[in-house]
Amino acid sequence: MIQRLALTSCLLLVSTPLVAAPKPPASPLPASLRQEAARLRDEAVKGTRAYDWVSSLTTEVGPRPAGSRGEKAAVEWGLRTLRELGFANVRSEPVTVPHWERGRADGEIVSPYRQSVVLAALGGSVGTSDEGLEAEVAAFDSLAALQQAPEGSLLGKIAFIDGKMPRARDGSGYGATVVQRGSGAIEAAKRGAIAVLIRSVGTDSNRLAHTGGMRYDDAVRKIPAAALSNPDADLLEAQLASGKPVTFRLRLAARLLPDEPSANVIAELPGRERPDEIVLLGCHLDSWDLGTGANDDGAGCAIVIETGRRLLSLPQRPARTVRIVLFANEEFGLSGAKAYAEAHKEELSRNVLTAEADLGSGRVYRLSSAVAPQSLPWIEALVDLLRPLGVERGENDGGGGADLGPMRKLLVPAVSLSHDATAYFDFHHTANDTLDKVDRAGLDQSVAAYVSMVFVVAEGGMTFAPGPPPPPERRR
Amino acid sequence: MIQRLALTSCLLLVSTPLVAAPKPPASPLPASLRQEAARLRDEAVKGTRAYDWVSSLTTEVGPRPAGSRGEKAAVEWGLRTLRELGFANVRSEPVTVPHWERGRADGEIVSPYRQSVVLAALGGSVGTSDEGLEAEVAAFDSLAALQQAPEGSLLGKIAFIDGKMPRARDGSGYGATVVQRGSGAIEAAKRGAIAVLIRSVGTDSNRLAHTGGMRYDDAVRKIPAAALSNPDADLLEAQLASGKPVTFRLRLAARLLPDEPSANVIAELPGRERPDEIVLLGCHLDSWDLGTGANDDGAGCAIVIETGRRLLSLPQRPARTVRIVLFANEEFGLSGAKAYAEAHKEELSRNVLTAEADLGSGRVYRLSSAVAPQSLPWIEALVDLLRPLGVERGENDGGGGADLGPMRKLLVPAVSLSHDATAYFDFHHTANDTLDKVDRAGLDQSVAAYVSMVFVVAEGGMTFAPGPPPPPERRR
Repeated sequence: MIQRLALTSCLLLVSTPLVAAPKPPASPLPASLRQEAARLRDEAVKGTRAYDWVSSLTTEVGPRPAGSRGEKAAVEWGLRTLRELGFANVRSEPVTVPHWERGRADGEIVSPYRQSVVLAALGGSVGTSDEGLEAEVAAFDSLAALQQAPEGSLLGKIAFIDGKMPRARDGSGYGATVVQRGSGAIEAAKRGAIAVLIRSVGTDSNRLAHTGGMRYDDAVRKIPAAALSNPDADLLEAQLASGKPVTFRLRLAARLLPDEPSANVIAELPGRERPDEIVLLGCHLDSWDLGTGANDDGAGCAIVIETGRRLLSLPQRPARTVRIVLFANEEFGLSGAKAYAEAHKEELSRNVLTAEADLGSGRVYRLSSAVAPQSLPWIEALVDLLRPLGVERGENDGGGGADLGPMRKLLVPAVSLSHDATAYFDFHHTANDTLDKVDRAGLDQSVAAYVSMVFVVAEGGMTFAPGPPPPPERRR
Repeated sequence: MIQRLALTSCLLLVSTPLVAAPKPPASPLPASLRQEAARLRDEAVKGTRAYDWVSSLTTEVGPRPAGSRGEKAAVEWGLRTLRELGFANVRSEPVTVPHWERGRADGEIVSPYRQSVVLAALGGSVGTSDEGLEAEVAAFDSLAALQQAPEGSLLGKIAFIDGKMPRARDGSGYGATVVQRGSGAIEAAKRGAIAVLIRSVGTDSNRLAHTGGMRYDDAVRKIPAAALSNPDADLLEAQLASGKPVTFRLRLAARLLPDEPSANVIAELPGRERPDEIVLLGCHLDSWDLGTGANDDGAGCAIVIETGRRLLSLPQRPARTVRIVLFANEEFGLSGAKAYAEAHKEELSRNVLTAEADLGSGRVYRLSSAVAPQSLPWIEALVDLLRPLGVERGENDGGGGADLGPMRKLLVPAVSLSHDATAYFDFHHTANDTLDKVDRAGLDQSVAAYVSMVFVVAEGGMTFAPGPPPPPERRR
């Protein structure tokens, strides 16, 4: 009891001087605007309908990879949902997408100790013959290690790239490891390999493989490529550690089919005063085929739809136009993003700010930007607005998700609200990306960040000059 | 610094009276025996080779369901490993086991919203025709709720039993929920259903189904039975919540093949002075087919093998015989346990104590018993010995694992060392039961509990009279 009293006194001592301290510098935003934005922010944290939208999408549509029946159903779902919510100018814009079909995947360690393993074809992989292929395994700790192997040294072998993705809040382990998925087939084939296996690019230890896009080089033979689940990569590693030769049997029924028509789905809140000035909010409507795309990117679509819905419910629409774009086929080549940038290139200079939600449903903890230096005070004002949500200032080097890339090449200002991705790569691109993995509180907090940010940008007089174009795209 | 000093004084004040308090009553065990057991206990906590045995079994053998190639490989592995470690009387004893083959399982919600789901046939289920079956789904919250449905009310339908298993350290949610797996097919068929689906009996939210044994009644039509992964049960629940009729398509290629020969694997440390008196340590060598049986029951076998190995390394063997039994086919009908009890029935009265490790690799936190009341002081002495490991006294109503059941019907004294099963039912009976899920520290602590307990029982003069026979067996 005595200690408790002492502690209380101490707190009083500490807090008293703060009351007398000078106020922080005033925000460049008018007080009334800040107050209204703060109200929108604080209301959203208490609970939103974002979870309803991701629940609806995953229950009624589910998997929606490029070219699939599910993707077409998702476009219908998007148009119907946005119309029912009362958005204006709800429309689809045509996009042609590739259509790759996974088919069945079977893998087996044949010797020294025969065991079946869980694996998944990488997105875009060619298949094997019906009989499959069987060969000795040559293992490497990373893509860089494989690149040290001389040409011809993998002749007739299966290369296994065993890089492990570290867990991090900012998902930074992904960029370092995903190269084995994107370039593994090219680098292995250059050295004579007949197939490539990678350890799943993910942070979990579930017996579910992580798929994701991969590349071929037309100058190099196209070899089948698959990801082992992490426990199965452990198993292969353990058998390799026996010192005995390890042979593996792989059969993939994957194949590329003719292109399919698809669409970007677009909706708007037309600006009350400056309808030509656009605040663009994106997400991608497609998903990989193994899960129901709840977090990738159902969550992002739910966030931007709910952000728009909350702005719709205001007594008056914001001064500028808020445009929501549910992009087609992000996962397998950014078809929708490229089509959008091309179709809207004349209008891109009228984009006041662009943002995309595409890193799951964790809490937003950072605001990064890609704007010109003279626009940074406005970015600081946005961070100030979001600080009560636990959002910190990021660098001015990262703006937007993958779908903003083609637009950013043509110079649009962008921001990125980074979600806490500590858990995201446990289920990303696996069958486990299902509704139960959605972080409801994180989703609401994310909506709070978006709605308050979008409101002040759409209502106020901020102008953002674009930053430099982004570095070359990375596979998500 | 001042606060730290004050806290230290406070601790001194509290601890001083304890030093002066009277000693607890002396243990009925001789001090030298207790000291040696404590030494064995404390050495094991620092690290054992138990993980090596489960690593070897899962890497070199993997899945080993009754009747499979893997089961035969496991018997060879057991004989080889126990011989190499220097056990005496290493042998196999014949057991005939059923041979059920899972085959492929496909499930799809057809309407209102078409989606494929992840499911697994329950162990022993009949298959469907090659075309599969399709019917409307009738859902129930529990087996008890289904049992309320009138006869004929499920005619032509697929019953879905949606009971959710709660998480608990003692795994108590399992017994309450597993009835839907064991009896669901019988109860649904009685009411006219053509198939039964259950929510997986497990505490995880991974898109991996939990298999496990189920029963038929020869007087009731045998219908196909499968478990949905928990996220897929959620999806079915969400589609049912739409209020629209839900139809489901199921195709199972499961089938029962002719019985196969198998074996219990047995090894001994013959008693130095009283070789006819046996301390029996069991585990089961078989596993379900989906994972590599790392925790169920690779961990248990590793614990009993390592316990025996540590006793082997003592300067002299214990006075009584320690017998290790790796039982055949626990999962699909206790074949090995029944064969053992029958083959050894004349000798069962010479079992001083029996125990089985079959609840994974979590830390042991409780010792329960099934002995006559006059033997309870010895049980208390065992608990005293294990208390520094965090082991508490359980009831005198639960002794041993499922494989001890047939012996206990013929009256043998038994104890149960309960592992912390908080995480166990996340991966139990799924593809996820792989080496990475083994709790290494838990495994070592478990060996510490077993080795010290077995040492004092095998070396000392304790006698345990058997408790009453166990209640009817439950499916694991």
